Amino acid sequence: MGAVIYDRVALIGLGLIAGSMGLRMRADGLAGEVVGHARTARTREVALQRGLVDRVCDTAAEAVEGADLVVLCVPVGAMDAVAREIAPHLASGATVSDVGSVKRDVITAVGPHLPDGVHFVPAHPIAGTEHSGPESGFPELFEGRWCLLTPLSDGPEVERLARLWNALGSHVDVMEPDHHDLVLAVTSHAPHLIAYTMVGVADDLRRVTDSEVIKYSAAGFRDFTRIAASDPVMWRDVFLNNKDATLEILGRFTEELFALQRAIRTGDGKMLEDYFTRTRAIRRGILDAGQDVDVPDFGRAVLRKGTAG
Amino acid sequence: MGAVIYDRVALIGLGLIAGSMGLRMRADGLAGEVVGHARTARTREVALQRGLVDRVCDTAAEAVEGADLVVLCVPVGAMDAVAREIAPHLASGATVSDVGSVKRDVITAVGPHLPDGVHFVPAHPIAGTEHSGPESGFPELFEGRWCLLTPLSDGPEVERLARLWNALGSHVDVMEPDHHDLVLAVTSHAPHLIAYTMVGVADDLRRVTDSEVIKYSAAGFRDFTRIAASDPVMWRDVFLNNKDATLEILGRFTEELFALQRAIRTGDGKMLEDYFTRTRAIRRGILDAGQDVDVPDFGRAVLRKGTAG
Ligand SMILES: NC(=O)c1ccc[n+]([C@@H]2O[C@H](COP(=O)([O-])OP(=O)(O)OC[C@H]3O[C@@H](n4cnc5c(N)ncnc54)[C@H](OP(=O)(O)O)[C@@H]3O)[C@@H](O)[C@H]2O)c1
Ligand SMILES: NC(=O)c1ccc[n+]([C@@H]2O[C@H](COP(=O)([O-])OP(=O)(O)OC[C@H]3O[C@@H](n4cnc5c(N)ncnc54)[C@H](OP(=O)(O)O)[C@@H]3O)[C@@H](O)[C@H]2O)c1
Repeated sequence: MGAVIYDRVALIGLGLIAGSMGLRMRADGLAGEVVGHARTARTREVALQRGLVDRVCDTAAEAVEGADLVVLCVPVGAMDAVAREIAPHLASGATVSDVGSVKRDVITAVGPHLPDGVHFVPAHPIAGTEHSGPESGFPELFEGRWCLLTPLSDGPEVERLARLWNALGSHVDVMEPDHHDLVLAVTSHAPHLIAYTMVGVADDLRRVTDSEVIKYSAAGFRDFTRIAASDPVMWRDVFLNNKDATLEILGRFTEELFALQRAIRTGDGKMLEDYFTRTRAIRRGILDAGQDVDVPDFGRAVLRKGTAG
Repeated sequence: MGAVIYDRVALIGLGLIAGSMGLRMRADGLAGEVVGHARTARTREVALQRGLVDRVCDTAAEAVEGADLVVLCVPVGAMDAVAREIAPHLASGATVSDVGSVKRDVITAVGPHLPDGVHFVPAHPIAGTEHSGPESGFPELFEGRWCLLTPLSDGPEVERLARLWNALGSHVDVMEPDHHDLVLAVTSHAPHLIAYTMVGVADDLRRVTDSEVIKYSAAGFRDFTRIAASDPVMWRDVFLNNKDATLEILGRFTEELFALQRAIRTGDGKMLEDYFTRTRAIRRGILDAGQDVDVPDFGRAVLRKGTAG
């Protein structure tokens, strides 16, 4: 049990991220009360059943009343409308945050609606799975992962939000919004678009190869399909709202891909081997940074025995 | 304990695949004796220490003497030289197989060297990890995965090899070599090149973003780095020996990627959402086919607790 950090937290949107936050806050007593709102009645019901929140409200406006922390956990493209709706109902002195995967456009969408006396501290937990919806959250999601804050100014409300994310299990860093968007374009947004594309190509080819693409799905492709199973609306919004950085990285990607394709075509084995040797080193760095585990085949063999028979 | 399927198996190359075969064959008594050869003395020593084989030989020629099954477990580009070396030493009636990730070029490289009275049954176990070398094998590697045979003719030697792969834990299918190479270009070879490329782009950008690309490594990229940590020599050989199919698939990939980039640039949210919805369905297919497990974040949270503290 940690100490209570906020007296009342309102989660707007009750999917993977909000659900994981709510479960952990309630388990560890980080909030006096956790109130939630989601668009559909079904999501609100599941959220109550699973105990993601103490209480649900039919509107976002109701949910934020009296809350000292409001966290927007909806797709990036829905932030504008939600901010507009809640603005008149926010308690004076409240902190508004979000968990959107893009920061510059969310700041532009949300910031102007918020009244004076309300503190806006945008955040992005670098933690997720390919699952979404109110069934998908779990309290350990943020354990050992980073949460990036992109505050517009310093202040005690930034410290306090950082304390919450620490209590949720995360390391916290502060970053400029534009820099955040560039780094994430590299580490997350471009890789997702690439995975979606490759799976799309395979889907077209199924007419040629029947179900073989699925049946003989090997390591590379199998991982791509998992990435490409992520929520379509969330990712549509990420790309539309981090357009410049994503297109910039994809441009560089295509350039490099063409260079490697040329090496294959001309039989330049040395270029290929050197390139692959260089990329291998990066993996070492990620393992050393503790952002992944290194067991054969990700322990799938073990897991399959343990969970799927 | 299964019944002995071959009296003496010779494994040429003692890395991930051969090591996993040897451990399983010895554990389950599938071979009277397992003999091995690898290029370097160090690999041969580790192989003996880990019990991958019963006995090692200093040359491939020695290792194949008296063997009724010889399996070539070296990189695809090394198959030609190995076949040339062993050919005069093969026992009459022996079966020669391989585990190369490419089939047409291996058949072209190996087939012509083999004497009459020796049966060539090419094979490819669709199972692997990003690890390589004699330390990396484990007996469950092939469990529940497919092994594709691309035999040049029917016969009891094909049945017998299929029995061995079944005993190693695999499902077995027979396929045309060219078709194999196309399917694998989609499910494995193109995805690997794409992952290598994306990690290479990120590596270039590290000068811009310092170690942030590693530190904040998110789901998409983290998976790419694992794929791009695979053995450089093995993959160089795969691309050089499955050139046409790989380039064909990469061509289609680039076309699709450009279409998605255009949708991002023009803000065509409907196109993006529809595309991502379509690719999501493929994941379902793979889970249904039993070729992956579906636990949050691949059970990394569980594994981290269990293995890495
Ligand atoms: N998933 C990840 O890997 C990840 C990681 C870090 C950050 N994020 C960010 O976190 C946010 C939420 O993602 P998530 O994965 O938790 O999503 P999710 O599981 O799909 O949940 C989204 C929630 O938002 C609600 N919602 C959707 N559209 C709405 C709208 N137009 N107005 C009001 N509510 C709406 C949904 O309500 P209904 O269920 O009632 O429709 C649902 O409760 C996104 O901004 C995303 O970029 C995601
Ligand atoms: N890894 C996978 O995911 C996977 C999956 C299915 C099929 N395959 C195929 O299986 C084969 C072996 O892959 P692997 O992952 O087991 O590789 P690995 O772990 O790197 O082992 C390769 C072995 O081949 C030996 N070798 C390398 N070059 C040689 C040469 N020029 N002449 C003689 N021996 C040589 C090495 O000996 P030293 O250690 O002494 O150098 C080593 O014992 C490849 O054809 C690959 O395409 C791999």
